[in-house]
Amino acid sequence: MSDTESALLNELVVAFKCLPSVGARTAQRMAFHLLEHDRENGLRLAAAMQNAIENIGHCSLCRTLTEHSICRICSDKSRATETLCVVENPSDVLAVEQATAYRGFYFVLMGKLSPLDGIGPDELGLDLLEKRLEDEPIKELILATNPTVEGEVTAHYISELAAKYNVNTTRIAHGVPVGGELDYVDSSTLSHAFDGRRNY
Amino acid sequence: MSDTESALLNELVVAFKCLPSVGARTAQRMAFHLLEHDRENGLRLAAAMQNAIENIGHCSLCRTLTEHSICRICSDKSRATETLCVVENPSDVLAVEQATAYRGFYFVLMGKLSPLDGIGPDELGLDLLEKRLEDEPIKELILATNPTVEGEVTAHYISELAAKYNVNTTRIAHGVPVGGELDYVDSSTLSHAFDGRRNY
Ligand SMILES: [Zn+2]
Ligand SMILES: [Zn+2]
Repeated sequence: MSDTESALLNELVVAFKCLPSVGARTAQRMAFHLLEHDRENGLRLAAAMQNAIENIGHCSLCRTLTEHSICRICSDKSRATETLCVVENPSDVLAVEQATAYRGFYFVLMGKLSPLDGIGPDELGLDLLEKRLEDEPIKELILATNPTVEGEVTAHYISELAAKYNVNTTRIAHGVPVGGELDYVDSSTLSHAFDGRRNY
Repeated sequence: MSDTESALLNELVVAFKCLPSVGARTAQRMAFHLLEHDRENGLRLAAAMQNAIENIGHCSLCRTLTEHSICRICSDKSRATETLCVVENPSDVLAVEQATAYRGFYFVLMGKLSPLDGIGPDELGLDLLEKRLEDEPIKELILATNPTVEGEVTAHYISELAAKYNVNTTRIAHGVPVGGELDYVDSSTLSHAFDGRRNY
């Protein structure tokens, strides 16, 4: 992959490689595509990216990505206050909303316990979760972390936290393929796993 | 693919779909990845995109993408002025430079003749090419358009143009797979095709 005649184009190609699964060849095709065929949408994408990055923060209740201080789900008074579903990522909220009839609230860890990467309880906002367990009338904490080793460790840690506040914890059922990622699972599998949750 | 809690995030997901081979699922992963893990590089990408789109135009001699009025290759006094190589896209210049020993000049059509899409001689800058055939001491015009139906038609059209100015035309050899795209070919095939070019 050699450089092009244009320094700005070379910078753009390098910058594209920050996107997931975009290598040198794909980055070059993206840069050429925008410059040759789609400058208007390219400018729109650049603006949307800057706008999102500068304005999207985290919901002060559930930690999911939002440009508001409290996200739409957490603001929804019609939802059941007795259930709180813990997931790793914002995309998992989408997956659960889409696949299941669950209409309680969420808590988004924005990761999973991973001591080697320096990700402990503080990084996952577990102090905030603990405060909610203490303050809110939560009857069931649904542990919907991914069924990976780290996801299970995280679920276990949180279940012990919940026990301190006498909150019952459930774990979504097997049915989600072990080693898989929650938001890659088809809707019916995820729905089945959700319905079949058992005490943790 | 349902919408997220954030309008700005949804806009970003839609905007990502302007990139080649990026569907809804990939667009969502890209948006989440940037916001969750790589905001700094995301801002850099947005700036590089805007900067490139606003500042990169076309070389006034060869039409390739450049932020200068004349590109680096066209400004290179050490190159052979007797040969001009016609390619469809800027990425083809890269491919030829990388794979072959050719060190003449280029003319980049930025497309190929495609009457149904409204792309005729004017859109490909053939008036500019004609002026160069008239003014410059070009002895050989190498037709390195893609070996597709439209690429062949384009090569044929340009060879007739060159004939008016008594400029000899050559066509890169078979060896490039028919129906393929020039910049997908491996270096040795392209080099072979280049060396084996014959009168057109
Ligand atoms: Zn929220
Ligand atoms: Zn040039």
